[in-house]
Amino acid sequence: MDVEIINIGDELLIGQVINTNASWMAEQLNLSGFRVSQVTVISDQKEHILNSLIMAEQRAGIVLISGGIGPTRDDITKHTLCEFFGTRLVFNEEAYHDVETIFARRGYKVTELNRQQAELPENCIGLPNKVGTARGMWFEKERKGGGKTIFVSMPGVPFEMKAMMTEHVIPRIKETFHTPAIYHKTILTTGIGESFLAARIEEWENGLPEHIKLAYLPQPGIVRLRLTGTGKMEQLIHQQVDAEVARLESLIPDYIYGYDDDTLENIIGRLLKQKQATLATAESCTAGYIAHLITSIPGSSGYYKGSMVAYANDIKQRILGINSSSLEQYGAVSKEVVTEMAIAAQTMFDADYVIATSGVAGPDGGTADKPVGTTWIAIASPNEVYAKKFSFGDSRDRNIRRTALQALSMLRKTLII
Amino acid sequence: MDVEIINIGDELLIGQVINTNASWMAEQLNLSGFRVSQVTVISDQKEHILNSLIMAEQRAGIVLISGGIGPTRDDITKHTLCEFFGTRLVFNEEAYHDVETIFARRGYKVTELNRQQAELPENCIGLPNKVGTARGMWFEKERKGGGKTIFVSMPGVPFEMKAMMTEHVIPRIKETFHTPAIYHKTILTTGIGESFLAARIEEWENGLPEHIKLAYLPQPGIVRLRLTGTGKMEQLIHQQVDAEVARLESLIPDYIYGYDDDTLENIIGRLLKQKQATLATAESCTAGYIAHLITSIPGSSGYYKGSMVAYANDIKQRILGINSSSLEQYGAVSKEVVTEMAIAAQTMFDADYVIATSGVAGPDGGTADKPVGTTWIAIASPNEVYAKKFSFGDSRDRNIRRTALQALSMLRKTLII
Repeated sequence: MDVEIINIGDELLIGQVINTNASWMAEQLNLSGFRVSQVTVISDQKEHILNSLIMAEQRAGIVLISGGIGPTRDDITKHTLCEFFGTRLVFNEEAYHDVETIFARRGYKVTELNRQQAELPENCIGLPNKVGTARGMWFEKERKGGGKTIFVSMPGVPFEMKAMMTEHVIPRIKETFHTPAIYHKTILTTGIGESFLAARIEEWENGLPEHIKLAYLPQPGIVRLRLTGTGKMEQLIHQQVDAEVARLESLIPDYIYGYDDDTLENIIGRLLKQKQATLATAESCTAGYIAHLITSIPGSSGYYKGSMVAYANDIKQRILGINSSSLEQYGAVSKEVVTEMAIAAQTMFDADYVIATSGVAGPDGGTADKPVGTTWIAIASPNEVYAKKFSFGDSRDRNIRRTALQALSMLRKTLII
Repeated sequence: MDVEIINIGDELLIGQVINTNASWMAEQLNLSGFRVSQVTVISDQKEHILNSLIMAEQRAGIVLISGGIGPTRDDITKHTLCEFFGTRLVFNEEAYHDVETIFARRGYKVTELNRQQAELPENCIGLPNKVGTARGMWFEKERKGGGKTIFVSMPGVPFEMKAMMTEHVIPRIKETFHTPAIYHKTILTTGIGESFLAARIEEWENGLPEHIKLAYLPQPGIVRLRLTGTGKMEQLIHQQVDAEVARLESLIPDYIYGYDDDTLENIIGRLLKQKQATLATAESCTAGYIAHLITSIPGSSGYYKGSMVAYANDIKQRILGINSSSLEQYGAVSKEVVTEMAIAAQTMFDADYVIATSGVAGPDGGTADKPVGTTWIAIASPNEVYAKKFSFGDSRDRNIRRTALQALSMLRKTLII
C-alpha cells in the first residue's frame, strides 16, 4: 500500500526548519509495512494545497498531511480540505471540550481564534490531540475504480504529530488495510565497517528466507542491522526472526553491543548498576563529551562520580599528577600518559572504572609522528588498566565523537568480561 | 523567480536519512533572493522521476535535482534526464580527467563503473565536482510561452552538493536571472523570549521601509533577527540595513550577543584571547557539556584549562573542597555551593575566569522547594564572583542545554564589562 506525505509550512521552504516530520513518519510507516512513495513540501497556499491533494490521490492509497491547522490566519489547510471534499465546517462539541481542557490546564480562557479550532469538516472523523488544541482529521474518499483513498490531516508540531500518529493514525490504517504481521529486530554493532561486516555475514544473508529482509543502517562508528519478518502468523514470524538473530550472533559475537533502541551509555549504566560499581572519566581530547553522554541517562548520578577534564598540560601534571617526564618523553598523546591519567582518576574519584582519553582532535597540533586524528584511550578496572591507539580522520567534530564511542565500547567489553 | 527542489533517493523515503539537503538548499536560495515553492522527494524510479520533472516544469522557472547520479546500477537519474530531454549520453574528456584525478589522489585505478560517470547528456553543461566523481549537469529548456526553464542535477551526498551549489549553481542562476542586490544581517539575541522581544521593537519594526524585511528565527534560548534588504543599488542597501541594525542595537543593547554565524563559544574564545585570560569550569548538572561546547572551537586549548565535573556530592567535597556544612545546610543546588565551586575551581585550575553550574536536571531529584529545572550558575572573574538562579522546564536534555547557554551568556557579559 503506497503512502504519500504532504508537509505544509512556509518555514520548511525557507530552510528555517529541517523536515524531520517526513523522515519520522516514513520510518514509522515503513516499520508497519507501508511504503512511502513521495514526500511533497508546499506552503500555506490554497491552490497549491488543492493541486497537491489531487495529484496525490491519483497515485497513492493513503495521503498523510501535516501542518497548517493551527489557530492563526495563515493556517488554511482545514478550509482547503473542505473545498477539496466539497463539504463545510461544523462545530464539534467533543473537540471544543478538548480545547477547553487544554486551556484550563494552562490557566487560560478559550479565545475566539481557538474556539474555531473546534470546527471540523462535516465528513471527517476527528482524531483526539492530547497535547495540543488542533484535532486530527480522518477522511475516506471513494475511488472511481472502487475501494477508497484515506486522507489524514495532522498538526505540524512534531510532538503533537508523533503522538497522533502512534496512538491513532498507524493503528487505524493497519486495521483498515488488514496489513500482515510484521516483526523487527535491530542488532547494533560497532568496531567493524559496513563492507567488512557484509562480507563476514554474506552466506547467512544469502540464506535468509524470502519473507525476512535485512537492512544495513550505518552511522558514524556504528552499523545497525535491521531484520524485518512479514507474514500471516505473528508468533511464527517472531520465532523465525529470533532464530536468525541467534545465528547472526554466533557469527559476529565480538561486534554486537545491543539491540533495538539501546545506546552504549544506557547499556553501560545498566552494567554498572548490576555490578554496583562506579565510574569516572579523565578527558583530554573529548573534553567533557563522554561525561555529557554518560550523564544524559537519567539516574546516572547513581554510578557516575565525575570527570577531570584536563585540557591543558599543566592541569594534567598539577591536578592529575601525571609525571612531567612522561609528558616530556612521550607527549600528552601517548600510551604512557593516557594510562597514568586513568590510574590517577581512579584514585582521585575513588571510582571502580575509569575511561581516559588523549588525542589530537585537530585541525592544528598534528605532527608527522602523530597526525590529526591520533587518539589513545585507556580503561582502568579494579583488576587492570589497558590502552589502545586509534587513527581517526581529520574532522575535529568527528574525532571527538568517534573517540567517545570507542571509549564507551571498550568500557562495555571490560564490564562484561 | 520560483524554484522547485526534487530530492531523489530511497533512503529519504524509508526515514533512514533526514532530508537536510532540501533545507540547506532552500536557505541558500532564499538568501540569494529566490523563493522555493515546492520540495518533492521521490525514489529511484524512472516513471516517477519523469513525472516529477514534467510537473515541476509546469510550475517553476528553476528545477534543482539532487541524488541518483552515483556509479551504481540503481542510480538512474542521468538516463532519465536523457529521456526527458530527448538526448543521449556522450563521453566527456574533461569529466573523465576529473574522475581520474580523484581516483589517483585516493590511490585507485578508474573502474568501468566509474568510467561511465564521465558520460553526460549531450545537451548539458557539466559542472565540476572537486570533491566527488559525479559531475553536475546544467540544462536549459525553452518554454512554450517564451523564456527558458533551468534544470540542474547534482549529487545527493551533502558535502558534494553544497560545494557545487556554492561554487557553480547559485552564481550561475543569479547571473541568468539578473537578480537584484540582496543583503542580510542577522542579529543574535538571548535572555528575552520572542513575544517580549517583538513587543519591545514593534515601533521600529513597523517603521522599516518596504524593501527591508525582518524575520524572527527562534531557537531554544536564542532568538535570531534577520534583516534582508533588496534593491538595485548594492552599496545603498548595505548602508540602509546597517543603519536599521544600529537603531535596533540602541533599543535592545542588553540582549544582543553577536551577529550572523557567530556562536557564544566563539565570541567567548575571542574575548578571552583579547584579554589573554584563561577559563575553567566546574560543572555539576551540565556535567561536561559546557566544556564540550567551549572545546568545539579549534584553538580553544590556548585559553581553556579544563573542567572539574563534580557529579557526586562527595567529589564536590573531597576534590573541590566544598564545605560539608554548606552542602548540608543549603544543598548542592544553592547559591552558596555554586559560588564555592567557582572560587575553588579558580584556584584549582589557576584560571582567570570560571563558570560553575549546579541544578536539578531531572527527571528525578526535584523537591517542593527545588523542583526539576532549578539551576544555579556562578561566574568568577579576577574581581568578583556572582551567582544567578534560573527555573528551566522539566526536560532533562533541555535543562542541560539551557543552563549551558545561560552560563556562556553570563560569562560573555562579564568579559565585556
